[in-house]
Amino acid sequence: MERYVLSALVQNHAGVLSHVAGLFSRRGYNIESLTVGETTDPSVSRMTIAVRGDEAIIEQIQKQLEKLVDVAAVKLLDTSSAVCRELALIKVGATADTRPHIIQTADIFRARIVDVCAESLTVEVTGDQSKIDSLIELLRPFGIRELARTGISALERGSASLPLILSLI
Amino acid sequence: MERYVLSALVQNHAGVLSHVAGLFSRRGYNIESLTVGETTDPSVSRMTIAVRGDEAIIEQIQKQLEKLVDVAAVKLLDTSSAVCRELALIKVGATADTRPHIIQTADIFRARIVDVCAESLTVEVTGDQSKIDSLIELLRPFGIRELARTGISALERGSASLPLILSLI
Repeated sequence: MERYVLSALVQNHAGVLSHVAGLFSRRGYNIESLTVGETTDPSVSRMTIAVRGDEAIIEQIQKQLEKLVDVAAVKLLDTSSAVCRELALIKVGATADTRPHIIQTADIFRARIVDVCAESLTVEVTGDQSKIDSLIELLRPFGIRELARTGISALERGSASLPLILSLI
Repeated sequence: MERYVLSALVQNHAGVLSHVAGLFSRRGYNIESLTVGETTDPSVSRMTIAVRGDEAIIEQIQKQLEKLVDVAAVKLLDTSSAVCRELALIKVGATADTRPHIIQTADIFRARIVDVCAESLTVEVTGDQSKIDSLIELLRPFGIRELARTGISALERGSASLPLILSLI
């Protein structure tokens, strides 16, 4: 199943995440990732939702999202013309012997070492999903202790911005 | 009100986000940010939840989260001993005159230019929340067209990993 990325502008209040998540779970659609953060207007948040399914289902989800009163705009992003980025923190087991190999691998991915202790290293990496997946696979033999991924955030390329389909109340 | 960061290991299925979001919204607590991504075990996701409130309320939320069957582990992170990172994509209006200033500002924040067109630049930045807030403030005079933030992902410093409080089914 293909992965689709929906970008939505929503009201920044307590119930909106629950409404959106409920819409997906009632239909049994598993959200692959969801990120949400304030925009320059603190009353409005931007939600980026990655979901797998066929196109007909995604269009249906989009229409349902547009109907929610908390949702001011929804767009199905064309992933070939959007910047899709994710951040991951990866804690890897490390010894004096393996530490240089881990650092070298991180360098190739332009990842940053954000914490070091006697038994582990924590690496911060950003990129598209496949880049992060590749780094995880390369670090796996050293022993991954913990992994935290933000999920995808995305913006369309070019100067366009998401048009509001409803006026925010 | 202080900001608290909860890290949780949850089962990766359709209902879990809705359950967790519902728990917060029923009590009127606004989630400042929530990120969720797969761990090395595809059946388990890690959720990082940032929320503002007093300590008594946060401890109550933690206990309620622990009771959810989808939730395998919850920890209130000590933000002074955790790596907390967020990613933001910022699309800024740019002309031939202002472009060099924007690029210079981005450089100071070690931000990367990920898209350029005649009328705008898109910048990718990672860091703690206050760093991202600062860059947004500095770019605001140029005109921010769009902003997408992932919300915080976090791992404890040191080699410890989150202990499972319940066995995952």
